[in-house]
Amino acid sequence: MVNIGIIGYGVVGSGVYEVIKTNTESIASKAGQEVRVLKILDIRDFPEHEEPELFTKEFDDLLDDRISIVVETMGGAGIAYEFTKKLLAAGKSVVTSNKELVATYGAQLMVLAKENGVRYLFEASVGGGIPIVHPLSQCLAANAISAIHGILNGTTNYILTKMFREGVAYADALSEAQRFGYAEKDPTADVDGHDTCRKIAILTSLVYGSQIKCDKIPTEGIRNITGDDVAFADKLGCSIKLIGYSRVKNGAVTARVCPMMIPRKNPLSTVEDVFNGILVHGNAIGDVMFYGRGAGKLPTASAVVADVIEIIKAPVNSSTYFWKEEKENTYADLGDEETAYCVRVHESALSSAIAAFGNVEITSLRQEIGFVTPVMKETDFNARLSGVKSVISKIKMYTEQGEQV
Amino acid sequence: MVNIGIIGYGVVGSGVYEVIKTNTESIASKAGQEVRVLKILDIRDFPEHEEPELFTKEFDDLLDDRISIVVETMGGAGIAYEFTKKLLAAGKSVVTSNKELVATYGAQLMVLAKENGVRYLFEASVGGGIPIVHPLSQCLAANAISAIHGILNGTTNYILTKMFREGVAYADALSEAQRFGYAEKDPTADVDGHDTCRKIAILTSLVYGSQIKCDKIPTEGIRNITGDDVAFADKLGCSIKLIGYSRVKNGAVTARVCPMMIPRKNPLSTVEDVFNGILVHGNAIGDVMFYGRGAGKLPTASAVVADVIEIIKAPVNSSTYFWKEEKENTYADLGDEETAYCVRVHESALSSAIAAFGNVEITSLRQEIGFVTPVMKETDFNARLSGVKSVISKIKMYTEQGEQV
Repeated sequence: MVNIGIIGYGVVGSGVYEVIKTNTESIASKAGQEVRVLKILDIRDFPEHEEPELFTKEFDDLLDDRISIVVETMGGAGIAYEFTKKLLAAGKSVVTSNKELVATYGAQLMVLAKENGVRYLFEASVGGGIPIVHPLSQCLAANAISAIHGILNGTTNYILTKMFREGVAYADALSEAQRFGYAEKDPTADVDGHDTCRKIAILTSLVYGSQIKCDKIPTEGIRNITGDDVAFADKLGCSIKLIGYSRVKNGAVTARVCPMMIPRKNPLSTVEDVFNGILVHGNAIGDVMFYGRGAGKLPTASAVVADVIEIIKAPVNSSTYFWKEEKENTYADLGDEETAYCVRVHESALSSAIAAFGNVEITSLRQEIGFVTPVMKETDFNARLSGVKSVISKIKMYTEQGEQV
Repeated sequence: MVNIGIIGYGVVGSGVYEVIKTNTESIASKAGQEVRVLKILDIRDFPEHEEPELFTKEFDDLLDDRISIVVETMGGAGIAYEFTKKLLAAGKSVVTSNKELVATYGAQLMVLAKENGVRYLFEASVGGGIPIVHPLSQCLAANAISAIHGILNGTTNYILTKMFREGVAYADALSEAQRFGYAEKDPTADVDGHDTCRKIAILTSLVYGSQIKCDKIPTEGIRNITGDDVAFADKLGCSIKLIGYSRVKNGAVTARVCPMMIPRKNPLSTVEDVFNGILVHGNAIGDVMFYGRGAGKLPTASAVVADVIEIIKAPVNSSTYFWKEEKENTYADLGDEETAYCVRVHESALSSAIAAFGNVEITSLRQEIGFVTPVMKETDFNARLSGVKSVISKIKMYTEQGEQV
């Protein structure tokens, strides 16, 4: 019998309780022993709960000797950070779904876990229930990973899918997402790309081996995407997706969050609604994609519980999932990024566009024209674009990743 | 420094050598120490090889005390079986890409590995480089897995994609696959579904916990799929894919390999060309899909090397990947399977079809009509179908899997 504690009995925390109750038997067979929730810390009361005696408002109750693993599902990088440090220092392994905390203090907490002979796991912090942290660090370990492109936020993907399929405006798609509970009342973290930013920061830290900071990742959301952008994308055989991506080249990282045009033959273009998809490029395996529900109570909880089982089977940190503090000279010069854009301009600007970008193929829609630039450095693109009149929008194109070794 | 041996220096075996050479540094950082190939067993000579001194024709050379892990990439369930038993008995962990061996003797070899305190891993045996064995047994451990549907064979998927996209006949698509080296001269193992059968047997054994035998899995290939089937599928908003699937319900397994109509909104329908996709349904996570190159030298080799790294980090079998010998009462009655079919009949048979299946929606194509039956038991379907005249073909429909808990 392994006793665990839960901090934060919200959507994910209560999901963890539910998964453990529902799948008790199969979890016991995988873990080699039964898993039981012994204490739940939350400031709220849950008088209707079937086991009210589990709840406590005292953090120190989680330091109970019988508890070896604590699940942190409270979120944020404030109190959760303090609690996690205390738990690791007290010799408890911690499993979290808290992307903000991992993206901010991951390196430090991993060191603390290692020093105390316990583990700090966070599969649920990216992609909800989709296995991605484990596969990246373990199953793809024989590859040099050169690129990750992820649809990492279900809310924005729902909005973009709705705009694409039904031709509705951004504001209407957002309202509907809010009505269905897919978007929060204040949707900033989702629609401005901050949630995606945290997740790509975590995945990139994992691949790169040192902490990638969110404030080093240029982040643009989907607020400015219009119906015309979507219509152009469709004409070009693409969908528009909010992509968190990172590429590692010559030891330097380029990471960014922005809307991107994804050609229809790319598997990411078929990831719709609230689903997430993460496309990883390794030098041996080529492209591999992980697809599933990137959020939600039970999917996310199932990833938390899988980490709990992993710790029961291997309680000692074998240095998997390990990255160090941010190092110098991590980031590539953003201006050096090789990139291509889809640019929309007023039709009167055609000659200035051709003067700037050469003989690009033109797609017309009403009084507008759109074209895809050749691949060039970002600085080069910006210099040329400054010569183009009446620019309506520019959206990055997904470009093919390098060939296999 | 960890020394490994390789048995069988064909496509995958030489890929393992190449991946270890190319990614030496990143592998060392993941494994915690350098990995070196010390001996390669093959009956052939490789005089042009850069390290000819590694080759041997003597199996006993692999029992060298310095070798702790042996990679078996020779294939087949004959000599490879004998070699694997000897290696495990001698205290060497074995990593394999040999699906035939794992599907036939997996349970027995796992017991042998456990008894000798070593490991027997086989991530590369299914889905080439796509992480699936690990995620199924580890990352999804908190789920009760109720269904797996996989496009597990790249050759047949290439042929079907070609037929679908370009309207070419089966025989022509097969010839082209052979010309590109995607299909062998004798394509039986691929096109008749045997390769898919072995892979779904392995995945199902893993989920079910006891050996699922290939001869218990009804297996139908793609030889009989015609251009008209494909045209009908397209009209119905589906693609035709060769699917290996298994479902677990009330403790009993239904497993089958057959061509299947996949609705376009299902992520499996977007898996094209030589790519593989494996859709897993868990009671907490819902649908999750793994996508990538299911074959090929370097992708498959990268999965083998990932298993080698895994063993270096955790040399003792922690009972992951473990299934037992086949048990009694494993298989559900095939006639009880809840299923739906797409049936094509000559237009003259319309009234008999309606008499048998009720008011189904009819799709016409030249002198033929096609319709999708309601979901019903297989025996019920067969009984009703016997009353329909001029049946041209019947293809199973993908049916939605159960809701989440």
